[in-house]
Amino acid sequence: MYATQAEILGRTDIPSPGRAEAYIRQHRFDQPTLVIDAGEVVARFHALRAGLGRAAIHYAVKANPAPELVARLAAEGCRFDAASRAEIELCLGAGAAPSEISFGNTIKRASDIAFAHAAGITLFAADAEEEIDKLAEHAPGAEVYIRVLASAPEADWPLSRKFGCAPEKAGPLMARALRAGLRPVGLSFHVGSQTRRASMWGPVLDDVARLWHALRAEGFDLDLLNIGGGFPAGYGEPVEAPAAYAAQVMAQVDARFGNVRRLMAEPGRGLVAEAGAIAAEVVLVSQKSDTDAYRWVYLDIGKFSGLAETMDEAIRYPLVTERDHEPTGPCILAGPSCDSVDVLYEKRPVQLPLGLRAGDRVVIRNTGAYTSTYASVGFNGFPPLDVLVI
Amino acid sequence: MYATQAEILGRTDIPSPGRAEAYIRQHRFDQPTLVIDAGEVVARFHALRAGLGRAAIHYAVKANPAPELVARLAAEGCRFDAASRAEIELCLGAGAAPSEISFGNTIKRASDIAFAHAAGITLFAADAEEEIDKLAEHAPGAEVYIRVLASAPEADWPLSRKFGCAPEKAGPLMARALRAGLRPVGLSFHVGSQTRRASMWGPVLDDVARLWHALRAEGFDLDLLNIGGGFPAGYGEPVEAPAAYAAQVMAQVDARFGNVRRLMAEPGRGLVAEAGAIAAEVVLVSQKSDTDAYRWVYLDIGKFSGLAETMDEAIRYPLVTERDHEPTGPCILAGPSCDSVDVLYEKRPVQLPLGLRAGDRVVIRNTGAYTSTYASVGFNGFPPLDVLVI
Repeated sequence: MYATQAEILGRTDIPSPGRAEAYIRQHRFDQPTLVIDAGEVVARFHALRAGLGRAAIHYAVKANPAPELVARLAAEGCRFDAASRAEIELCLGAGAAPSEISFGNTIKRASDIAFAHAAGITLFAADAEEEIDKLAEHAPGAEVYIRVLASAPEADWPLSRKFGCAPEKAGPLMARALRAGLRPVGLSFHVGSQTRRASMWGPVLDDVARLWHALRAEGFDLDLLNIGGGFPAGYGEPVEAPAAYAAQVMAQVDARFGNVRRLMAEPGRGLVAEAGAIAAEVVLVSQKSDTDAYRWVYLDIGKFSGLAETMDEAIRYPLVTERDHEPTGPCILAGPSCDSVDVLYEKRPVQLPLGLRAGDRVVIRNTGAYTSTYASVGFNGFPPLDVLVI
Repeated sequence: MYATQAEILGRTDIPSPGRAEAYIRQHRFDQPTLVIDAGEVVARFHALRAGLGRAAIHYAVKANPAPELVARLAAEGCRFDAASRAEIELCLGAGAAPSEISFGNTIKRASDIAFAHAAGITLFAADAEEEIDKLAEHAPGAEVYIRVLASAPEADWPLSRKFGCAPEKAGPLMARALRAGLRPVGLSFHVGSQTRRASMWGPVLDDVARLWHALRAEGFDLDLLNIGGGFPAGYGEPVEAPAAYAAQVMAQVDARFGNVRRLMAEPGRGLVAEAGAIAAEVVLVSQKSDTDAYRWVYLDIGKFSGLAETMDEAIRYPLVTERDHEPTGPCILAGPSCDSVDVLYEKRPVQLPLGLRAGDRVVIRNTGAYTSTYASVGFNGFPPLDVLVI
């Protein structure tokens, strides 16, 4: 059923159009709809697993929590990284065992910690004294790993300082955890979203390995290294193939950390982004004045109904129309809401067919990650993005 | 029951804490909850009406579409500006007559135009040829006003060019509407969100009045001027009182336009923002390193669960805690999600009590507008903002 490892390692990109896009071409939709190909996600899971070797994959559920998708991944042996009580419930409902779920958010409500503990979750992240104290009170005896600040300066989105503590705090936090009856088992970090080349992990791994060995020298019995996410998805620019990328990351990890007993990784975007496509529609094409060089193209989906990651034009989703064989011209692309912030691409306009008009379909590629749950409940009365798992 | 006009005209600000905040103090909430005082909204409606005189108020439903609120306003004689089919259905369900609802979004799906026409809506906005054509086909004979580009350069958020056409296109669009059997009745514009002083309307009104008189001289029988929104809400910085502000705007309108038969205004934020407060909770307080000058304070609500308008730190909501009598220090304020973008105030940190800790309540003031419907359906598994109309 599945591609052989050689086939997986050898693939350089997802064939395009994929199944999701083919499905969109064959159907009509009343409203913007994300179609996601679960088979493609599973194939990527196996490709990443082939590259990651003995590191356990904890899918970052927040990237796309469609229940059918989580269930398919659980059936394949995938583990999960949950950000909240609702995500834990989702994973449990999809068939994951509590031992396969980590509660990886460093910012947890006390009541959610208590819920997770009661549900049998035993592995938690923390990066602050107060979080350690909450864990000790509401999940006594739990395993905790300390998230440290680290980011590849070259990542498309170096993460802010929101998550993680300075390296010098890791030891004191572990000591506090021990005193409070918790089990400080290791470290985690996040290299940065969309870390496009495996070689970009090097400097971050250097820093974390230095800390790891120092803590062990201090006597902390570390046996868990969580390398987080950062596995890239293609958005039109070239990225390395999943298995080869993951294998290169692991080689760098092994060279620095030696024989770590438990390794885990938390891919999200890298598993689902390219497996999804959104069926959208042109609502209006206009020219603001007769002398304007650009047209404005308004879609039925925008920043508030699923495309929040166009913020600052960071991610540029490839667009496909049925007129792509016709001559094109530059367009400013915007969403349908009465909000002037709801403009998708303006600084760098997109090329779209000159004949494009209201009612035309637009397929927005590689939208499987961070779209469906970013959608607002009903801004301007527009419904949230529909999701269809095929 | 209601304040007299003198009382309304004389008030300079909403008493603080208002009823919503008092309600929050007296109750406990399981999750972030917006409490909005319908009586306060009604009082502001009457204050604005006192100032606007014969201009009809069309509440911009998108600012806060809580059904109870829309019904209260409908009962008071308020009219409505709808952005979508769902908002039209909401207004009709709340008791508004079709003649009291304008479909003010310039970007409308053809099927939504047909729905509105069938429901009896007769007044539509447009700013492009294709929109005129869609209206002619799906709402034959309807009244249409042309939205023109105009923005006060001093507004807190001068709107982008997303809405409206260049002034020189208004005439050709009206001619096209006439030829297509529509009734081009007038003009609309938007001065810019949060136009804090009434005097800032002057330059925009100059431009629109010049166009208005030119179009009339060309023979267009204009009888509707829609002055849009822009009525400010207070977020800690001083704004003029609603009635006095509106009266000053209308004096400027009258001076430039003379005796316009139909005037309308579309306040949204100005009606609801200050009538709402959010009950939130501290989830974690941490310090990234022992030498950091700032603490990080993480709330159970963030950019993706209602506070999207903190984008670029544009709006700074006043925060109230139960420790406000204690010494304070600077904090970076962030939401609870595993997303590094979910930071509310970082460039300009907020002063919060040094004793603040997980579980403490934080009231976020003046959050009645553009919060509840901006909330995502469940990013990271966190529920959307709860709304309670009192």
